[in-house]
Amino acid sequence: MSQAIDSFVKQNEERFLDELKDFIRIPSISTLPEHVEDIEEAARFVAKSMATAGLENIEIIPTGKHPLVYADWLRAPGKPTVLCYGHYDVQPPDPVELWHTPPFEPTVRNGNLYARGAVDDKGQMYMHFKALESLIAVHGTLPLNVKFIVEGEEEIGGQSIARFVAENPAKLKADVALVSDTAMYAEGIPTLCIGLRGLMYTELECQGPRQDLHSGLYGGAAPNPLFGLIELLAKAKNAAGLIQIPGFYDDVEEPALAEIASWQALPFDAATYLNDEVGSTCLTGESDRSVFERTWSRPTLEVHGIAGGFTGVGAKTVIPANATAKVSFRLVPSQDPAKILAAWEEFVSANTPNGLKMQVKKLSAAPACVVSPEHPAIRLAAEAFKEVLGRETVFTRSGGSIPIVGDFARHLGIPTILLGLGLPDDGLHSPNEKFKVDNFYLGIRTVAGFLEKYSQAGSVPE
Amino acid sequence: MSQAIDSFVKQNEERFLDELKDFIRIPSISTLPEHVEDIEEAARFVAKSMATAGLENIEIIPTGKHPLVYADWLRAPGKPTVLCYGHYDVQPPDPVELWHTPPFEPTVRNGNLYARGAVDDKGQMYMHFKALESLIAVHGTLPLNVKFIVEGEEEIGGQSIARFVAENPAKLKADVALVSDTAMYAEGIPTLCIGLRGLMYTELECQGPRQDLHSGLYGGAAPNPLFGLIELLAKAKNAAGLIQIPGFYDDVEEPALAEIASWQALPFDAATYLNDEVGSTCLTGESDRSVFERTWSRPTLEVHGIAGGFTGVGAKTVIPANATAKVSFRLVPSQDPAKILAAWEEFVSANTPNGLKMQVKKLSAAPACVVSPEHPAIRLAAEAFKEVLGRETVFTRSGGSIPIVGDFARHLGIPTILLGLGLPDDGLHSPNEKFKVDNFYLGIRTVAGFLEKYSQAGSVPE
Repeated sequence: MSQAIDSFVKQNEERFLDELKDFIRIPSISTLPEHVEDIEEAARFVAKSMATAGLENIEIIPTGKHPLVYADWLRAPGKPTVLCYGHYDVQPPDPVELWHTPPFEPTVRNGNLYARGAVDDKGQMYMHFKALESLIAVHGTLPLNVKFIVEGEEEIGGQSIARFVAENPAKLKADVALVSDTAMYAEGIPTLCIGLRGLMYTELECQGPRQDLHSGLYGGAAPNPLFGLIELLAKAKNAAGLIQIPGFYDDVEEPALAEIASWQALPFDAATYLNDEVGSTCLTGESDRSVFERTWSRPTLEVHGIAGGFTGVGAKTVIPANATAKVSFRLVPSQDPAKILAAWEEFVSANTPNGLKMQVKKLSAAPACVVSPEHPAIRLAAEAFKEVLGRETVFTRSGGSIPIVGDFARHLGIPTILLGLGLPDDGLHSPNEKFKVDNFYLGIRTVAGFLEKYSQAGSVPE
Repeated sequence: MSQAIDSFVKQNEERFLDELKDFIRIPSISTLPEHVEDIEEAARFVAKSMATAGLENIEIIPTGKHPLVYADWLRAPGKPTVLCYGHYDVQPPDPVELWHTPPFEPTVRNGNLYARGAVDDKGQMYMHFKALESLIAVHGTLPLNVKFIVEGEEEIGGQSIARFVAENPAKLKADVALVSDTAMYAEGIPTLCIGLRGLMYTELECQGPRQDLHSGLYGGAAPNPLFGLIELLAKAKNAAGLIQIPGFYDDVEEPALAEIASWQALPFDAATYLNDEVGSTCLTGESDRSVFERTWSRPTLEVHGIAGGFTGVGAKTVIPANATAKVSFRLVPSQDPAKILAAWEEFVSANTPNGLKMQVKKLSAAPACVVSPEHPAIRLAAEAFKEVLGRETVFTRSGGSIPIVGDFARHLGIPTILLGLGLPDDGLHSPNEKFKVDNFYLGIRTVAGFLEKYSQAGSVPE
C-alpha cells in the first residue's frame, strides 16, 4: 500500500482500537432473545462506523430476525466493485467462569485483545471500515467502488442474508467479495483460503416397532431401529475411510498437482497435529492421502449423533420405536449436493434392514467452492498481503463450509477472497477469544493495499 | 382346593376386594421422593394385612431406602416351607391424563379393577394374603410353613431385598418360593413360567479425540468415536441375528424337544403378533427359530441407546470426543455371565477401530433361571391351577429377567413358582392398568389349593 496510508494507520492506531473496543462492548449475542436490544445497538453501531468510513446510502434493513446493514460508495465509474461482508453478532460467552477478564470488557494483554467477538468477527470486519476510512482520509476518495453488507445472524445460521442475497442480486452485484472471517495458516504467514468443502447434512430416521418394546420380552424377534442404523451406517463407509455409496466419488475433482505440491510445502508437524490438535493415538481415513487432502479436498461421511432409546444413567431394557442419526457429508468440487442426496437416499433404500423403515431428511446442502489462485483479485490480494507481512502468501483450503461464499457464487456469480488475520489459536466460540492487536493493524493495511491494487485491474467484464 | 375354602372365598369376595382397594388407594410410588410417606403407609398396610392373614413375627425392616416387610407362620414341623414374595411399590401413573378414572381411585368396570398397582403387584400379592387367611379361617391352621417377604423397591431395581436375601439366607430358607407377579399366556389358560432369560447389561465407552472437533476442519482425518461404535457393533451381530462374539454360543443349552413341542401347541397367531403386538412389517433374528425360541431360549444382543455428539434440533457439525452405547445381552441356560462378559471384552479389544479407545463397563449381570416342570412344587402348582381354571396348565418361559428369582436360586438354593394371574393386556406401567376381578378370586383359590396339595408332599430334604 502507499506510504501515506501506512502513516495514516500508524497515527490512528489507538483511536481505531478504541472504536473497536466500543463495538465489542455491545453484547450482541444473536442466539439469546434477551440480547435483542444489543443486536439492534450493534447494527446501529455498524451503520455509524460505515458513515465514519465515508460510505453512503447506509440502510439498516429489517429482516424476519436480526437486521442487515448495507452501505456503498459507487463514485468510481469504470472501476471494479468490491463487496465487503462481515457480521456483528457473536456467540454466547459461556462458560463465563473460564474467562480471565470479562468477555464484553475488551482487554489487551501480551499484545492480544481479549473479548468475545474480538476476532470473530467484529475485529476483522472493523479492518475493512478502517481501511476504507484511511483511503478516503488520505486520497479524498476511494480508488474503486465498494458495497458493504453486514449481517447479525452468522452465528445462528445466516438465513436472513441468504434470502437477501438471493432476492437482491442487482443491489449486491460486484466483481469480487471480500470476507475477513478466517485465520492465517500460522502466525506471520499471509494466507488466502481458496477452497471450502461443501456440506450436505441429513437426518436418517429409522422406524421400528409401533411403540417402545421390552427387550426381554421381544428381544430376538422385534426389529431394533438403533441396530438397523448401525448396520446401515457401517455399510456406508469402510474401515479404510472410503464411502461405499455407489456413485459417491464419480464427480470428485482432484486438486491440480501444483496445488497439492504447495500444501506439501506448508509447515506441518504430524506429531503435533496428532497429539496436540486432534489428541488421539492414530488418524483415520484414507491412509494414502495427506492430512491436507483428507481434510481439504476429499469428501467425508460423519455421524454426529444418534437419538432414540435410553442414554440416561443406568440400565433400561428398551427396544425403541424410533431412532435417528445425524449424518453429514463434506463435499468437494465438483460434487453436486442434489446428486449426492439422491445417491444417499438410494443407498439407504437398498440397505434398509428387514422390518424397519428408513427415511432421509435433508437439513442443509451447499456445494464446495473453489477459486483459482490465478484469478486477478486473488493474485492482487496475495500481493498486498505479501507486501504488508513481508513473506510469500500461501494458498490453503478449509475443510469447513462458509455458506455466504456459496451464496455469493450462486446468486451473484462472483468469487470471494477469504482474507483472514485470525490465528489458529484465537479461540473462536471459546472462553478468552482473542485477536492479535498487530494483526488488526496489519489487516487494515492489507485491505487498503488490496483495494489500491485492485482498482488498477479495471472492471471485470460482465 | 377343598370345598370349604371355595365357599369361604365366595362368601368373602366383596370384603377381599374392598380391602385390596384400600391398599391400592395408597400411592406408594417408589421412585418419587414426595411419596416416601405413602411408601411407609403401604409397608404398614402390608404388615396389617399379614396380621389379618394370621401370620406371625411380623417385622417392618428398615433398609437404606424403602422398608421390607417380613412375617412367617412356622407351626407345621415336618412340613415343607413356602417363601411368598410380593412388592407394595408401584410405578408412577404418568401420563395421568390418559386414565379414564383416577389411577389411585380403584374402579371396577366390565369386570376389571382399574388402578395403578391393581395387577402389579398389589392385587396379585393380596391373593397370597387372602389364601392364607382363608386356610386359617377354615382349618384353624395352615397346612405347611410359610415365610413372607415383601419389598418396596421392585420398580426401582430391588437393591435392598437383593442385599437382604444375600445376608439372611437362614431367615428366608424355604423349600420353594411362590411369586405372583406375571401373566397367564392368555385369558383362561393356567400358566406357569418355568424359565427366565438372564441379562448382562453393559456400557461400551469409546474415546476419540481429546475434545470435540469441528467435522469440517478435521473430518476425514480425526477418528469419530460414534462411527467407531457403529463399526464395532455392526461386527458383533450379523444380519441373520447371530452374535459374532467368539465363544458366545458355546454353553447355550437347547430346551428339551418336549418343551419346544409344548410351545408349538400354544395358541399363537403370527400375524397378530407381528402387526398388533410388535407393530412392524417383518420380524428379525434367527429365521430358522420360532418366535418362542427367539424370545425365550435364544440369547440376544441389543443396543438400547447411543450417547455422544449432538442429537438436538437442527445441525451441529461435531466429531465428539466420546460416545457410549448401552449394550445388553439376554442370556439363556447355561451361559455364564462372567464368561460372556470376558468374551465381550475380548471382542471389543480385538475389534476397536484405529485411533479410538474402548472400554466395557458392566452395569448388571444375572444368569438365566429354569426349573423343571417335573419339580414336585411346580407339578402340584400346575395341578391346583388346572383344578381352579378347569383347563390344562401350560408351561412357558419369559424372555425377561426377574432378578429376585435369581437371588432366591443363588442364595437360598430354591426354585421359584411363577404363578401369575395377570393377562397380557393388563397394561402394567401404562395408563389404565387393570386386574380382572375374577382372576383375583381365582388366584386366591389357586394359591390356597397349591398350599394344601404341597403340604402333603412332605418337606424336601435339605
